[in-house]
Amino acid sequence: MEKKMKFAVILSGCGVYDGSEIHEAVFALLSIDRNGGEYQVFAPDKDQYHVINHLTGQPSNEKRNVLAESARITRGKIKPLSSFNSADFDALVLPGGFGAAKNLSTYAFDGENLKVDPEVEKALIDMHKANKPIGALCIAPVIVAKVIKGAKLTLGEISSASKAAEKFGSTHKIVNAGEIVVDNDNKIVSSPCYMYNARISEVAEGAENTIKAILKLLK
Amino acid sequence: MEKKMKFAVILSGCGVYDGSEIHEAVFALLSIDRNGGEYQVFAPDKDQYHVINHLTGQPSNEKRNVLAESARITRGKIKPLSSFNSADFDALVLPGGFGAAKNLSTYAFDGENLKVDPEVEKALIDMHKANKPIGALCIAPVIVAKVIKGAKLTLGEISSASKAAEKFGSTHKIVNAGEIVVDNDNKIVSSPCYMYNARISEVAEGAENTIKAILKLLK
Repeated sequence: MEKKMKFAVILSGCGVYDGSEIHEAVFALLSIDRNGGEYQVFAPDKDQYHVINHLTGQPSNEKRNVLAESARITRGKIKPLSSFNSADFDALVLPGGFGAAKNLSTYAFDGENLKVDPEVEKALIDMHKANKPIGALCIAPVIVAKVIKGAKLTLGEISSASKAAEKFGSTHKIVNAGEIVVDNDNKIVSSPCYMYNARISEVAEGAENTIKAILKLLK
Repeated sequence: MEKKMKFAVILSGCGVYDGSEIHEAVFALLSIDRNGGEYQVFAPDKDQYHVINHLTGQPSNEKRNVLAESARITRGKIKPLSSFNSADFDALVLPGGFGAAKNLSTYAFDGENLKVDPEVEKALIDMHKANKPIGALCIAPVIVAKVIKGAKLTLGEISSASKAAEKFGSTHKIVNAGEIVVDNDNKIVSSPCYMYNARISEVAEGAENTIKAILKLLK
């Protein structure tokens, strides 16, 4: 029996406005399972930057933990990102959502002066040094661009995010929501997904194309 | 151009232990879009029965609103279930998760003495009277069994839920996680999904088979 490729997936909460974009996260997990891989999900064990009421779009005064909220997407099966070891995995995937820009980094507030969560930064650097593929959806490629210099990637249309990525030394390419950009040299695969006002089926396609391209890089 | 079939989907929060099972909900929406339908999501505008920390499995003392939490799954696009009108839709779908048994009904606490949320009950009765198809995943068919007498449906293996459904006058059939039971007379389609310890890809299959069977009933 062929060895199953092991994916680590980093979530940032549960819900597009303050955590992981749920569709992108679920489709990444589905695509890994459907294409013969297996996954372990991780999230930082810390408070979310804030909580947004997704009905009104307004911040609330609640406190929620990134790890505990991310566990909603994984039916409780999740580990703190502090326990991540790159030696245990063949590939790493970061779904998008504002959680990537608020909890995994400070991009939502600091733009091109963003800081990346140290555990996320370490995971990316360790995987990259080990020459293992990294997938990033939606806004998450801006984090990859900050940590791994000279990447080729997509953040959808030209935007402040794509300009920030270019400032960090990345080459940005415009593609549609369900399409991907593959950086063969750095083994980075990215897809815009909900960087566009996309249909849910386009986002599923973007996630699946990302996972398939990673599996191809692993052959 | 062929008319798009309109699905109403009722959610019960966001997270398997106190709300909608996220994978089932997302795959139902994906399957509707992929197969040429369109959807409007609804949820009751009321407090969740309780909040479960999905990392520890323990109840917390937080309060969360079913509608606002369900909005996380729909990126904010959702309506209160009080505004549902059966005349506007061709079919109705209820994903599972404990939210169906705690917020849409009291099945988790009252077993076969469950009460069904009045807005959910009305939606089911109105759709059934109009001879429009109803889909139900996971534990949700137990609600359908309570409201629509004499249904043929599945809740996975024999369990207290399947026995309750039979007590209400339903005929229960055992099928696998990704399979469905179609009641052609009552136009009810059900799939066990996470009533089993299923793989995420089996759950995607169960949701997609449910939506496809509903579209077939609508032809």
